[in-house]
Amino acid sequence: MTLIKQLTNQDEFIGYYLLKEVEIKQTNSTPPKDYLDLVLADATGELPAKLWDASPLDKETFFPMGLVKVKGLVQTYRDRLQVKIIQIRPAKTEDGVKLTDFIRSAPISSKELIHTIHQVMNGIFDTEIRKIVEFCVGKVEEKLEHAPAAKTHHHAYFGGLAYHMVRMLELGEFLCGQRPFLNADLLKAGIILHDIAKPEEMVAQLGIVSEYSLQGKLVGHISMASNWITEAAVRLGIDPEAPKVMGLQHLVLSHHNLGEWGSPVQPQMAEAVALHYIDALDAKLQMVEDALHTTPETEEWTPMIRGLENKAIYRLKP
Amino acid sequence: MTLIKQLTNQDEFIGYYLLKEVEIKQTNSTPPKDYLDLVLADATGELPAKLWDASPLDKETFFPMGLVKVKGLVQTYRDRLQVKIIQIRPAKTEDGVKLTDFIRSAPISSKELIHTIHQVMNGIFDTEIRKIVEFCVGKVEEKLEHAPAAKTHHHAYFGGLAYHMVRMLELGEFLCGQRPFLNADLLKAGIILHDIAKPEEMVAQLGIVSEYSLQGKLVGHISMASNWITEAAVRLGIDPEAPKVMGLQHLVLSHHNLGEWGSPVQPQMAEAVALHYIDALDAKLQMVEDALHTTPETEEWTPMIRGLENKAIYRLKP
Amino acid sequence: MTLIKQLTNQDEFIGYYLLKEVEIKQTNSTPPKDYLDLVLADATGELPAKLWDASPLDKETFFPMGLVKVKGLVQTYRDRLQVKIIQIRPAKTEDGVKLTDFIRSAPISSKELIHTIHQVMNGIFDTEIRKIVEFCVGKVEEKLEHAPAAKTHHHAYFGGLAYHMVRMLELGEFLCGQRPFLNADLLKAGIILHDIAKPEEMVAQLGIVSEYSLQGKLVGHISMASNWITEAAVRLGIDPEAPKVMGLQHLVLSHHNLGEWGSPVQPQMAEAVALHYIDALDAKLQMVEDALHTTPETEEWTPMIRGLENKAIYRLKP
Amino acid sequence: MTLIKQLTNQDEFIGYYLLKEVEIKQTNSTPPKDYLDLVLADATGELPAKLWDASPLDKETFFPMGLVKVKGLVQTYRDRLQVKIIQIRPAKTEDGVKLTDFIRSAPISSKELIHTIHQVMNGIFDTEIRKIVEFCVGKVEEKLEHAPAAKTHHHAYFGGLAYHMVRMLELGEFLCGQRPFLNADLLKAGIILHDIAKPEEMVAQLGIVSEYSLQGKLVGHISMASNWITEAAVRLGIDPEAPKVMGLQHLVLSHHNLGEWGSPVQPQMAEAVALHYIDALDAKLQMVEDALHTTPETEEWTPMIRGLENKAIYRLKP
Amino acid sequence: MTLIKQLTNQDEFIGYYLLKEVEIKQTNSTPPKDYLDLVLADATGELPAKLWDASPLDKETFFPMGLVKVKGLVQTYRDRLQVKIIQIRPAKTEDGVKLTDFIRSAPISSKELIHTIHQVMNGIFDTEIRKIVEFCVGKVEEKLEHAPAAKTHHHAYFGGLAYHMVRMLELGEFLCGQRPFLNADLLKAGIILHDIAKPEEMVAQLGIVSEYSLQGKLVGHISMASNWITEAAVRLGIDPEAPKVMGLQHLVLSHHNLGEWGSPVQPQMAEAVALHYIDALDAKLQMVEDALHTTPETEEWTPMIRGLENKAIYRLKP
Amino acid sequence: MTLIKQLTNQDEFIGYYLLKEVEIKQTNSTPPKDYLDLVLADATGELPAKLWDASPLDKETFFPMGLVKVKGLVQTYRDRLQVKIIQIRPAKTEDGVKLTDFIRSAPISSKELIHTIHQVMNGIFDTEIRKIVEFCVGKVEEKLEHAPAAKTHHHAYFGGLAYHMVRMLELGEFLCGQRPFLNADLLKAGIILHDIAKPEEMVAQLGIVSEYSLQGKLVGHISMASNWITEAAVRLGIDPEAPKVMGLQHLVLSHHNLGEWGSPVQPQMAEAVALHYIDALDAKLQMVEDALHTTPETEEWTPMIRGLENKAIYRLKP
Repeated sequence: MTLIKQLTNQDEFIGYYLLKEVEIKQTNSTPPKDYLDLVLADATGELPAKLWDASPLDKETFFPMGLVKVKGLVQTYRDRLQVKIIQIRPAKTEDGVKLTDFIRSAPISSKELIHTIHQVMNGIFDTEIRKIVEFCVGKVEEKLEHAPAAKTHHHAYFGGLAYHMVRMLELGEFLCGQRPFLNADLLKAGIILHDIAKPEEMVAQLGIVSEYSLQGKLVGHISMASNWITEAAVRLGIDPEAPKVMGLQHLVLSHHNLGEWGSPVQPQMAEAVALHYIDALDAKLQMVEDALHTTPETEEWTPMIRGLENKAIYRLKP
Repeated sequence: MTLIKQLTNQDEFIGYYLLKEVEIKQTNSTPPKDYLDLVLADATGELPAKLWDASPLDKETFFPMGLVKVKGLVQTYRDRLQVKIIQIRPAKTEDGVKLTDFIRSAPISSKELIHTIHQVMNGIFDTEIRKIVEFCVGKVEEKLEHAPAAKTHHHAYFGGLAYHMVRMLELGEFLCGQRPFLNADLLKAGIILHDIAKPEEMVAQLGIVSEYSLQGKLVGHISMASNWITEAAVRLGIDPEAPKVMGLQHLVLSHHNLGEWGSPVQPQMAEAVALHYIDALDAKLQMVEDALHTTPETEEWTPMIRGLENKAIYRLKP
Repeated sequence: MTLIKQLTNQDEFIGYYLLKEVEIKQTNSTPPKDYLDLVLADATGELPAKLWDASPLDKETFFPMGLVKVKGLVQTYRDRLQVKIIQIRPAKTEDGVKLTDFIRSAPISSKELIHTIHQVMNGIFDTEIRKIVEFCVGKVEEKLEHAPAAKTHHHAYFGGLAYHMVRMLELGEFLCGQRPFLNADLLKAGIILHDIAKPEEMVAQLGIVSEYSLQGKLVGHISMASNWITEAAVRLGIDPEAPKVMGLQHLVLSHHNLGEWGSPVQPQMAEAVALHYIDALDAKLQMVEDALHTTPETEEWTPMIRGLENKAIYRLKP
Repeated sequence: MTLIKQLTNQDEFIGYYLLKEVEIKQTNSTPPKDYLDLVLADATGELPAKLWDASPLDKETFFPMGLVKVKGLVQTYRDRLQVKIIQIRPAKTEDGVKLTDFIRSAPISSKELIHTIHQVMNGIFDTEIRKIVEFCVGKVEEKLEHAPAAKTHHHAYFGGLAYHMVRMLELGEFLCGQRPFLNADLLKAGIILHDIAKPEEMVAQLGIVSEYSLQGKLVGHISMASNWITEAAVRLGIDPEAPKVMGLQHLVLSHHNLGEWGSPVQPQMAEAVALHYIDALDAKLQMVEDALHTTPETEEWTPMIRGLENKAIYRLKP
Repeated sequence: MTLIKQLTNQDEFIGYYLLKEVEIKQTNSTPPKDYLDLVLADATGELPAKLWDASPLDKETFFPMGLVKVKGLVQTYRDRLQVKIIQIRPAKTEDGVKLTDFIRSAPISSKELIHTIHQVMNGIFDTEIRKIVEFCVGKVEEKLEHAPAAKTHHHAYFGGLAYHMVRMLELGEFLCGQRPFLNADLLKAGIILHDIAKPEEMVAQLGIVSEYSLQGKLVGHISMASNWITEAAVRLGIDPEAPKVMGLQHLVLSHHNLGEWGSPVQPQMAEAVALHYIDALDAKLQMVEDALHTTPETEEWTPMIRGLENKAIYRLKP
Repeated sequence: MTLIKQLTNQDEFIGYYLLKEVEIKQTNSTPPKDYLDLVLADATGELPAKLWDASPLDKETFFPMGLVKVKGLVQTYRDRLQVKIIQIRPAKTEDGVKLTDFIRSAPISSKELIHTIHQVMNGIFDTEIRKIVEFCVGKVEEKLEHAPAAKTHHHAYFGGLAYHMVRMLELGEFLCGQRPFLNADLLKAGIILHDIAKPEEMVAQLGIVSEYSLQGKLVGHISMASNWITEAAVRLGIDPEAPKVMGLQHLVLSHHNLGEWGSPVQPQMAEAVALHYIDALDAKLQMVEDALHTTPETEEWTPMIRGLENKAIYRLKP
């Protein structure tokens, strides 16, 4: 079975894929004919596909996020690859394929990631800080198992957010060793809380974001997390204007560093500076890693990466 | 008695003034001598002043925010007016002067302004919105009687914030008449809440800001108000993620319009757009009015105004 | 008869519409066939439409700005609605439809708007200012009855410019009441003159701008209006460098506030500051109103609005 | 006699200088004493100077733009040279010094420059263009003999504007030879008109700008010149909206290239593009030349030049 | 034979053209058919073209950069002209057409341009500077005969780079006459070296750039030229950190003036300032000239030009 | 003996200090008197100091970078601490103080740092890369023992550059563990080379930068390092345009990430992205650490830090 990432022009292939998008459209011909405009995906990438001359049955059979068996031909349309579907049918139980094999996900299992996050949380000495962090994590506990860290920018896959958090926690631990003036409780809390509202900011299924939620648009994950910290304090009987509460809110509010990047205040605590630069380092390197990973080994250059000044990455092998 | 605004170079004068700042410094002479570096103020403006050869008694007698009787001479130092003090003593009870006569304040009394704000609040139909607004106003009720709207930018005087709110409410009412699609409840609430955290963001006395508070620096008035709305909802038993709560938070969070001006989200409700532009119009016109008001009638140009692209304003009388 | 705004995918409909654009094109088929690429419009919006297999007669029958009777089917093409025309013929006299019913226009009649503008002009006390304003209005008197205020940004419809002026005059009157230091003559003149050259900057028919004029491109409406004020002064025997003439030119030249927004000088008179912010407030609220008005009631969000930081507007109903 | 440019720390010197600025100030001592705060200048540069213990007679004797004989000592104050005056008296007739020897001026005499400009004007073939140019030059004919091209930026000296125009005309002639598609009439007219309103935008004496005029602030030289072209057309009976009139206005309006640099429209004619880049090249090279000229030969680096990205210029002699 | 520039909608024509691009594609029809997607070019411009129903032989016959004889029909597709090919065959020897007649090239022959560059190089007095320049020119001697100065921006044709250099050298010579403080050796060297690495930065054939080279992307022509100067010095036994070597590197490194335009340092020598502004003037005027030249005489406006603030140029004929 | 960092207003103290700056100045008195304007420093900070009534002997006795014994009084001048010197004499051999005790330096000894750097260099597998790195390090071997990493921004002290390199190498090693796709040779080489030319870009003594060198201004450390890599390749017989040479140059050239921050190309290799963000993280955290370290423990806020968006850092102790 051929992986999406390996398909090239003029390939004829058979395989199982995920239908990421399904839309009924009409051709320009007279009279216009219905066809299905699809996106085929697996864990290695995705490709647009057309099922010309779709029958009424076809139009009822296929739906987004369903698994299918496809026989197809790869063609070039406007300089991009596109699949012409020769045969297609829904996957059956006896085919033995399962959805989770077809989605991109973090290289570590969600369970392990969540376990690590809980361990770090338990290691926060300050009881009030720990309880506030636990309250906020509790709000998204379930979604954290699959939420991506972003729509497209970085860690945009199943478990991406938890993976990003764990990597940042490792880096934070290393830095606390290198620079003992950093307060480990604050840095841990900051790392766990900084993107904690993302699962409520975006509507995602299986790690794929379909849109921003109403709250995501009107309030945004940065202010949502700040509000959650206030809610946590009030519900836990902690003074919502105590310095440590402000400190946690400051870490969250300032982690995008600049106003034009979405932060209403700029970092003014050592841990806030650390948090922003740890976040940047991890996100940017992940963009590079993901781009290299989804680009065929035969290509010297990845596609352009929006989050890296729109530059492509070159594989130099000295 | 001569008003600060009327003093010109080489004037010799006697009058009562407020000591806005008092500092003990040393001259460059050998041996250096102590002198008092002062700022004299009244409701029309302020001027730096020097008391050369300050005696030990002088150093104990004068303190900031005290009233004094001064005999002085106006001189020019580095192109700016400065008072050389000839005689100075603290004001006495029998002098019959009172502090509030010497500070700049809004042209309408605080009582009246607060009354108007309460009237408008009472006119909010939606009970939950009204209660949330009342909760937030309740947090700063006392300070609202004197808080300025900013450190220097605009409405920087006794009662300036309440005055700004009342003027904006008038403008808001006019616009709701002109454009009935605007929701009056939301616009009223937005106007009252948008700067409601300013009295806690800045430390002010008699309308004069001395510095930003810790919370002001780490969280900022925009996020503080958003957090207060969450606190209000939780304490009042309203769902803190109900659409109307988000809506109020959106109005507050977006009222600076752009990220680089401090807003983590941009206006996405009709009332949010209205709020931002009403705020801008009122603040900018007040800067003009204040500058014209504190510039002697004999001057054609005001000083440069930072909030107006650093431009001075010309009095054209056609 | 179905309004454009109400049409949805798969609707079959009959109705009268305005042909806003008509173009003859060829299909990709071999041999290619001619078809008509059309834009159907009414007062509520517009939609692209195709007449496949256009006959030679068809190609001569239909022209832009003509009224037609159409039987059509709504389809989706690249995520946007598009009409497949089943039958089409020009409207006849006996159909009883008239052009002006099919174009978007200001909610107040041009006559009334122009009347109001004249009334305000007559109320300008300073004779020279009034005459200069009258001279400039005289240059576009006729076009003012239908000119839009912009190509797409705001008030982009029949009578939009006059409507924008009248709304701004109302707001200006309110502000002169709130802030008596504003000179009413200057503010009225500024509001009437600020966009007065727009009807000559853009080529428009029935409120629809087709392109910028040569003068619009090379000189621009801001400098055109400044030149007209000079011309008025010279022709009326007023010194073209008198302070009041400069003042009027300053109001016009500075009304976009910043150089990057097209103003060669920044506001330096109280009325110039007021003019800019009145203009901004009215234009932005109109963008919101127009977007809400042309978005079906069933949609919670309007499309993105370029003049509002590319944000969509949400209808929050608390 | 020692030139300003040659004075170094601890020099004692005698010579004639121009008093560019004179101000009476008071020392910090008790009681404060009057002293004169002066700026001494000659054609090679300027230095601040102090006359300590100024007598009442001194205060009446010295005034700006007067010539004086000075005996002084050069000292360092806050890292900058400053003259302590030992003796000073006004220059007398018998001293045989004259004002114009003490001011910086263009290296070619004003007469010659004006003559060249007239010659070029006479060479404009198109009668209407020539007459409009003549009308505008006529407005500032007298001031053109001494007006500088800017307050400090470039060509900031006696005759600087005419000198800038002549150099640009030479460069324009060269380019018309290199690129025959350029219209020489338009380019000549554009070069002569682009800064023609500067003598009315700034108040200058002997090539030294003291301030901007009211019209300079409210309208600015770019729009002033555009208005003058309109005035010229009206007074000369030429249609003020004829293409060639617009063309001339376009050249003037667009010559700063970008809105943030003061141009309300961007260059859209070949000659407008040429005009902007000729202006830039000549102004920037003159800044370099002036900086090298006023820096002692012994210095490798000039001071920082604001118009050249705040960079200093190094004299590399290979 | 009809030139590309002269073709208009519905023209039927026969002529010889260059195949600038050739791609095999499939139509949307069922089953899809192969067609050739072509770009026809000559020295006056280029047009997209389609050969519908391409035979297997067709697919093997036509290749990029080949000459063909075409009978075609001009149509409009999405508002742009496009050729429907009726007949096509490769050019034969007996047709007597040659490749170089079909490409855009500088108006002066490469031979002459290279000759002029060598003459100027020989005129550099300083032996070390001359040798370094010769070394760098030697690296691209052959490619200089055809290299364009840019991919699309300006001088994007056969010999464009050498032509740009020669024009700049003429302008440099004129300026050295006007301003004798400029060092002619440095200015000549700077002009020759500033873009000398461009032939290695971009991969070009017959003046047409297909892509950037690896070195072009990773190092860029500015740093490449700086490195070449170091290499030249080392290989020629000149101290690579001698002031004159730094000077040459400074000229190259600073010639884009600002960091955001690619220069790691800003101009800090008189000749560096001159170089940047000569480069800007020549490049911008060439953009204008090229746009006017490739726009039919009947058009008043050229297309928009990216390098000129995205403005079109108007042909004003007074 | 009191450390600079511990001195507060009105303290009288005795101790040994480093004279970081010494300048002879004159008072404003009549006649003016000479005084010494000094900067006292030790490893914890620095303070301005005045020796009033300096004798001729004083003026000859004290010089920059000398050690002195001082009795002084701390005063406040313009809101900043300043020392009035009561007694001062040069340190004598028998005082037993040595220069290196009085300068700020990295917390790890230069020897150790250099040793670590050599160890890492030896661990580079690719022979050519290792030799190029060694050649470049060899150029500044001696200066690396004391060179700071910047003038004021970060690591501005004795050994600061080597310290920055070592910390970055540790971080780089950690990341290579976390993300095995990173090439360790390239990342090590990039970290060592990225600022390797700084010791030649700035003139420094004991870790204190006095000014930029000529090469530092005209070429800059980024291009200098790129040129050195070329020189290394040529001298070592390696092709200067081999991919691995380009790769090293790319790492150096792109490490400031953006053009406006001084990088002529943007990161396009995984290791280049890592290098930039490692550099940013280490530099920013060091700014925080240095500011906290030099701020008295009693202060809650550090001074504003230019490299951190001009924000001060708050010590939150939860």
